[in-house]
Amino acid sequence: MLSEIAGGVCAAKGFKAAGVHCGVKAGSSPDKKDLALILSETECVAAATYTLNRVKAAPIYVTMDHLEDGVCRGIVANSGNANACCPMSHENAEAMCTAAAQATGLKAEDFVVASTGVIGQTINIQAIQSGMPAAAAALSEDGSAQAEAAIMTTDTVPKSAAVSLELGGKTVTIGAIAKGSGMIHPNMGTMLAFITTDCAISQDILEDGLREIVARTFNRVTVDGDTSTNDMCVVLANGMAGNPLIEWKDESYQAFCAALEQVCRTLARKIAADGEGASRLITCTVRGARSEENAERLAKAVVGSSLVKAAMFGADANWGRVLCAMGYSKAPFRPEYVDIKFSSAAGEVAVCRQGDGLLFDEDLARKVLTQDEVVIEVDLNEGNEEASCWGCDLTYDYVKINGDYRT
Amino acid sequence: MLSEIAGGVCAAKGFKAAGVHCGVKAGSSPDKKDLALILSETECVAAATYTLNRVKAAPIYVTMDHLEDGVCRGIVANSGNANACCPMSHENAEAMCTAAAQATGLKAEDFVVASTGVIGQTINIQAIQSGMPAAAAALSEDGSAQAEAAIMTTDTVPKSAAVSLELGGKTVTIGAIAKGSGMIHPNMGTMLAFITTDCAISQDILEDGLREIVARTFNRVTVDGDTSTNDMCVVLANGMAGNPLIEWKDESYQAFCAALEQVCRTLARKIAADGEGASRLITCTVRGARSEENAERLAKAVVGSSLVKAAMFGADANWGRVLCAMGYSKAPFRPEYVDIKFSSAAGEVAVCRQGDGLLFDEDLARKVLTQDEVVIEVDLNEGNEEASCWGCDLTYDYVKINGDYRT
Repeated sequence: MLSEIAGGVCAAKGFKAAGVHCGVKAGSSPDKKDLALILSETECVAAATYTLNRVKAAPIYVTMDHLEDGVCRGIVANSGNANACCPMSHENAEAMCTAAAQATGLKAEDFVVASTGVIGQTINIQAIQSGMPAAAAALSEDGSAQAEAAIMTTDTVPKSAAVSLELGGKTVTIGAIAKGSGMIHPNMGTMLAFITTDCAISQDILEDGLREIVARTFNRVTVDGDTSTNDMCVVLANGMAGNPLIEWKDESYQAFCAALEQVCRTLARKIAADGEGASRLITCTVRGARSEENAERLAKAVVGSSLVKAAMFGADANWGRVLCAMGYSKAPFRPEYVDIKFSSAAGEVAVCRQGDGLLFDEDLARKVLTQDEVVIEVDLNEGNEEASCWGCDLTYDYVKINGDYRT
Repeated sequence: MLSEIAGGVCAAKGFKAAGVHCGVKAGSSPDKKDLALILSETECVAAATYTLNRVKAAPIYVTMDHLEDGVCRGIVANSGNANACCPMSHENAEAMCTAAAQATGLKAEDFVVASTGVIGQTINIQAIQSGMPAAAAALSEDGSAQAEAAIMTTDTVPKSAAVSLELGGKTVTIGAIAKGSGMIHPNMGTMLAFITTDCAISQDILEDGLREIVARTFNRVTVDGDTSTNDMCVVLANGMAGNPLIEWKDESYQAFCAALEQVCRTLARKIAADGEGASRLITCTVRGARSEENAERLAKAVVGSSLVKAAMFGADANWGRVLCAMGYSKAPFRPEYVDIKFSSAAGEVAVCRQGDGLLFDEDLARKVLTQDEVVIEVDLNEGNEEASCWGCDLTYDYVKINGDYRT
């Protein structure tokens, strides 16, 4: 594990960021930033993963288009409106890039664009156009926190991560910000995650690495089983670290990917912990599987189960729901081999051995389950593969937040 | 539509039922019935569908075994414990049949057995054995309500349905009881549903009919996306109506199946409306599809979406979540063709045409969405097939009920 450093999306050389309030959502507080800009001094190679939802918001299509040549200079993003399913959505996504380009002296095609918020209401593009010069003027190497704030919707905490590593005698840095709280489920690009790095790396290999890492990190988070129309994870690499260009899947590539995976895992866990209304982070680790894919499918089913999530909220060691969720995951396993325990900072409690319930100390179980972070540990006793997925408990606040989100 | 008649699971000729309190769950109120018995005067042909969960409770396996010859005489069922995932589960499920057989002078193999309640705690078989003679003594043609009460867990209302039709000059009756409130999701046998009929029908054709009908009724209900380990739907036909034996898929078969489907649909809707914590029944009807399968998949995704369910609780016309849920259903459709409206007893409000949002009257929308029964109507404008699925809203009470179910 590399140690975390400060700086978020500006930690890597040559990146600046900004976040301002421009009034995307009518009546929103002037204190709520809603327009983010991230810019690299020099051209970047870029790779992205997108939502697998058949209904994709306009910014997804515009970004796909702008990244067709594999290079870009920056990211423009707003909260307060998803810019999805409206007659002018596509034109407005392009207009956001044009506004960013005009404010920075670049071309519209140099920008990745992302939006998050309510679906089906026309975005206030005038507000974004009016606010863009201020965003460009505010671009700074200390701007990560502002950009983080500008992409938050129901998020309760801003989310960033950064690490450095040595590659060929040079210090290479990877930094990132993310948002995500509701409408989150595996099998997609991800929520919004913007990653920047000064690593010199070729575009094709960066894309390969990102795809593999997203599958093992962001795509292992579930909050409510709903895959958004706007999910996007993008990485920009400007090469300013001066390391020897990574062109092959060699040791440098492995080291870079390990660092990138650490950044993505940190953000994925932060997103799960900040799931709408969540009171605790739930990790399900499935070990002893015959394949990682199987382990992942089982772990996802467990953290995605409404009944498991509600039991975790109630600190109820109802392990039958864990086994039940595994049972409908469609992954093959032998129930009669399964061991289950719950663990946390308060200790651990074994509740099921070889598919049958164990007598356990209910008081200890309650202590274990009332921590901020609880791990459901499943051993299939069939093989050597494992996977972890992350989620959160299901609380009254989830219902409250989502019962009247539009108004 | 046939008119509903009274009598529930005893409506058909030759069936008696009973429900008593025997104390399956320690400390349960003596007023809570927890042991149900249903008996036919004569031998029945029987068909059943079961949960598709890989983890199946012992009563499922014992029932499969006892129905291998396609005939039986009755049903024994308990609430308060699922009799699943314990070392003695299989023996105890057999012991329930043996106790029922001894109390009624029949054989253990004559009985179907079902259990519902918490998973992973050893069932109190002594309580069931002690209570069985009282259950047998209480068997009566008026016993449906007692049996209904005995299979309830978190259900807030008992559920029954019955209809009669004329076949070959004879009156044929189909009656049923069901339970189901949480851990309910399509792709399974179903919750517990016990159907009795005096129709003379061959076993193989009864099985075909049941399988098709369950797919279109119980399997189109979702409460929380969790498929239970104990789901079962069973139909017993004793032939006492004296109608000409239905052996072919002729007009009589079609008429019988239409009646059976009506009974199952009525119960499916009652189960959805009584979903844990539900404040309203949500129906999603998808029309204009190229196939019924597609329409069903889309409708299921909509009624299964936590975000749609929370919006329905808040009477929030957030149709973007409907389109978003359709998008991740994996069913093909063209978002740009889709029309969406909400309707109920208070009127209807169109919110989306050809994939784009419409301006609509928010006050009218709120009136429409605050009724006990709300329909989300989707038109794909692609073909002539349609399907409806049923669910409920996601409320504070769902979280409350499931946050501490075991204790």
